[in-house]
Formats: sequence, C-alpha cells, structure tokens
Amino acid sequence: MSRPDSFRIGLVQHACGDSTQANTDRCIELIRQAAEAGARLVVTPELFTTRYFPQAEDPAAFDLAEPVPGPTTQRLGELAAQLGIYISASLFEKRAAGLYHNSSVMIGPDGAIVQRYRKMHIPDDPGFFEKFYFTPGDQEPGWAVAPAGQVRAGMLICWDQWFPEAARLSALRGAEVLLYPTAIAWSDDEPEEEQQRQREAWITVQRSHAIANGVFICAVNRVGREGALRFWGSSFVADPGGTILAQGDTDSEQALVVDCDLARIEQVRRMWPFLRDRRVDAYADLGRRYGD
Amino acid sequence: MSRPDSFRIGLVQHACGDSTQANTDRCIELIRQAAEAGARLVVTPELFTTRYFPQAEDPAAFDLAEPVPGPTTQRLGELAAQLGIYISASLFEKRAAGLYHNSSVMIGPDGAIVQRYRKMHIPDDPGFFEKFYFTPGDQEPGWAVAPAGQVRAGMLICWDQWFPEAARLSALRGAEVLLYPTAIAWSDDEPEEEQQRQREAWITVQRSHAIANGVFICAVNRVGREGALRFWGSSFVADPGGTILAQGDTDSEQALVVDCDLARIEQVRRMWPFLRDRRVDAYADLGRRYGD
Repeated sequence: MSRPDSFRIGLVQHACGDSTQANTDRCIELIRQAAEAGARLVVTPELFTTRYFPQAEDPAAFDLAEPVPGPTTQRLGELAAQLGIYISASLFEKRAAGLYHNSSVMIGPDGAIVQRYRKMHIPDDPGFFEKFYFTPGDQEPGWAVAPAGQVRAGMLICWDQWFPEAARLSALRGAEVLLYPTAIAWSDDEPEEEQQRQREAWITVQRSHAIANGVFICAVNRVGREGALRFWGSSFVADPGGTILAQGDTDSEQALVVDCDLARIEQVRRMWPFLRDRRVDAYADLGRRYGD
Repeated sequence: MSRPDSFRIGLVQHACGDSTQANTDRCIELIRQAAEAGARLVVTPELFTTRYFPQAEDPAAFDLAEPVPGPTTQRLGELAAQLGIYISASLFEKRAAGLYHNSSVMIGPDGAIVQRYRKMHIPDDPGFFEKFYFTPGDQEPGWAVAPAGQVRAGMLICWDQWFPEAARLSALRGAEVLLYPTAIAWSDDEPEEEQQRQREAWITVQRSHAIANGVFICAVNRVGREGALRFWGSSFVADPGGTILAQGDTDSEQALVVDCDLARIEQVRRMWPFLRDRRVDAYADLGRRYGD
C-alpha cells in the first residue's frame, strides 16, 4: 500500500489507430492495469482517441471532435467510478460550430468532471498543424489546477511543456504535480542525431520545470508510427529534484505506475527555496512579446 | 580562425585562496591562455578575487569589497585592452557605506566598462549566507544585456540560474548567450548521491534555459575546497538546442575555449518557435508571490 504522504500515479502509453472505439478500448484496458497496480490517478496521452490528425490540415478532421462532457468523458466517468480513481484524459473538444480546443479533463472517482483545461500554447510547424484546429485556451485565468485525491494536479498539455511560464503559473496556483499529456514524434526526414537531441531536450526542459518549481512532473506520450511521424513514447515521472523516477521506452504500449513521495516537495523547497527569492517586482516584462 | 557567424568564448575555472592578489593573478593567467586560444569574450567565476566568504556572516568580510570601477576593473581593463577582448568579471561591489552588491561587469576591448549587472536573486541557506552581504540588484530594469563583439550577452549570476524568469527576460532583451559566473559547491555533510543530484539539477536547469529561449548558455564555476565546501567546477557551454558543447571537470583549473555558431539560434528558433507562441496575455500572475 502507498504511504499516507505518497500517491501512486499511472501513465498510459499506447499507440493510436483509425478507430476511436478501438483506441478508447485500448486506453481503458491500460487504465485498468494501472488501477489494479494501485494507481489513484491515471493519465492518458494527448488526443488518445484518434490518430494524430494535425499532421495535415483537413476540414473533415473536425468531425473527430466531441463535446465535453460527451461520449468519451461519459465512458471514462463510468470507468473512474468503477475503479474509484481519478483519470486525466486529453480530448479534441468541440465547443461550438467552428470552435474547437485541445483540452484535457480531470474526472473524479464519482465519475464527474472535476476540472477542464484548454491548451494555452498551440504549436504549428510542418507535420504539427495545430493552429488550424485548436483555438488557444481562453478560460480565466487560463491555467488549471485540479484536486486529484492526495495531490493537486496542474493540467497542462504537450506544447505547454516548453514554456517555463506555464509550469510556474501552475505551481503558483498550488500544483504539486504537472501533467503533460503529449503527442511528440520524430519525423523521418530528420537525421538520427537530431532526433536524439530533440528527445533529450524534451526530457531536459520538463525535468527543469520540476527543479525550478519543486514539483513532480508527469509526461505521457503516445507510441507508434503514423505516416511520416514516429511517436517516441518515453513517458516519465520526475521528482521535485529533477530525478527521473520511471520512464517508458520509445515504442512499447505500457502502463507505468510510479510512487511519488509528496514530502519530497517540502524537502526540496527548503533546500532550494526559489519561491522565496523570486523577484516579483522585476518580472513585468514577461508580459511583453519582445524587448524591442 | 572563427567563422564570421561564430564567436569563441573562454571560460576560466580556477580555485580561490586567501590572497586577492594571487587570485587575480591566477585568473589573469587563465584569461591570457583563453585569449591566446582565440577567445573573444572570457568569463570569470563568481567573486573570483576572494574565497567564498559568504560561508559565514562576518562583518569584517565587507572589507573584501571594492568600488566599480575600482582596482580590479582597472587591472582587467588594461588586460582587455592589451588582449583586444571582452572580459566578464564578477566582483564584490561596494556601492556606499553599508551597501554592497554581488556584481558583474562587462569590460570591452578598449578597457572601459560596457555594462554592470547587480545580482537580482540572492540565495541564503546554510553555508551560503548571501543575504547578509548582498543587496538585491535594483538597477532599472534589473536585467542587463551587454554587447560583447559579435554577440549580446545576458549578464546573470549564479542563483539567477535557477529562475526561468531571469533567463527569459534576458532573452527578450536580445541576449544570445547567458553568462552565469557561479560559486556552487558540495557540502561535506551531504551524501554522495545527493551531491550528484545537485550537480545534475544545476546542469539540467541551465540547459533548459538554452532550450526554452533558443540561446547559448555559459556557466563558469570555481573549483577547490574551502572549509566544508567543495566547489564542483563543471563549467560548461550549451547551445540553443541544449547540447553541451564543452565542459570542465570537477576539480581542475582550466581555460576552456568553445566555438559558438550563432546561426544555430535562428535554426533552433525556426524549428521550435517558442517566442512566437508565448501567451503574454495570460502571464500577469508571474508578478505574484503565490496564488493564494
């Protein structure tokens, strides 16, 4: 059993095919595995019900979206209630005609949605045409921290992971773990050395959020080939000292289960008390695009 | 010779003893070595003219401070002019009676001070009693970017390296390389595993500033034992992709010389255009201490 000051988190790393039904079934199977292994909060990859459709700009792909609450949150709500766990699920959300978001929801052990987050930072580069599909989040204040049993979870998504601001703002709102459902991949046209650099940078920047904020971070990526993209998995949890507690491989479907000792937050923050020393009087220019 | 779009930076890693004269002589010797190897900008460790006096709170230690400009900037100015290089020097600055700063200065190849920076984030924990000695920087806007030949250098100091805000604000002011003169050490009372974790976290968080901002970073630490502290050296340069280009060891005095390809900044920022996607409309709470 977990100690009272620790929580067990589950990371569900899987591939995604053409069938929403099959993808959801596979995800649920792995969530069950994680719950059976004692996870009290299980996190899905980004947009796990579909292939990574932003590889191309296709108006027909908006048909893949669903309302929140909607069929998937309904099904996961029943699962969460049955298993008595929290589920963080990433979904393509239809908010209104022509208005879509890349969202994540925290579902509680009573089956209800505890919190919704709409991705704030939207990428767009070749093979990742997200600005075509996703309206940037506009909830107030943008950043969302959800209670998830013993722990408060910062609900961020993929591209957010490159922005120290998002991690900091979530920590300042009380997050103890930052969740990053992710869909990040290697492109076939990149040399192997560059691919490894990208994966290493992805791990490094998230570990640094753990260190700079004294929080756990939990990144959950998909695996598998989809067209020219090869999703690199490598889902991991880092502790507030930046140490990787567990990490998936680059191509297997798996349910990782990791114990997080919450007392570590206080320990690390006492030793390196960055929150004490922030120069909040001198940060106003962070609200500027550039200093010119 | 350097390519026109690259610059060669020198990192001077050395130990510091009781004699300011001897410490300065040793530093100058290594600066000369770096310049002879082609460095156009050479960076000293933090407070290189003295032992790390903040190990204890001793009013007599204020005698170690000097004005800026003062004897050390005079001596380094002559050296810079002789060698035709830029020197980034970290000094204990006396500003007025009872008013002291942990400062760094950029000295140009004409021997004049180009820019002064006063450390903004001041640590204080057992063995590093800096809040006793150093008034937090209060220049407007706090952050300083100095021209240093082909490159614009963000002038940060040690504890600043743990704050993503400082790196970001320097990058937004046009910094292409962030300089971190440093005095960071292992304490004898910490277990080996924790010591390695600390060094790894120190490297990770600075590499992440390179990645998140698409800039070079240059950290220069001292080496040697001083009382219960063992300074861990490991001075390094990382490129805008987070790759470590060169790194010193944990205990040798050395002058590292590293070529930085400035075109890499544009390359990396085109691929991962974080500056484009920052949500400057939603960052206001970064100016708050905490979200309660």
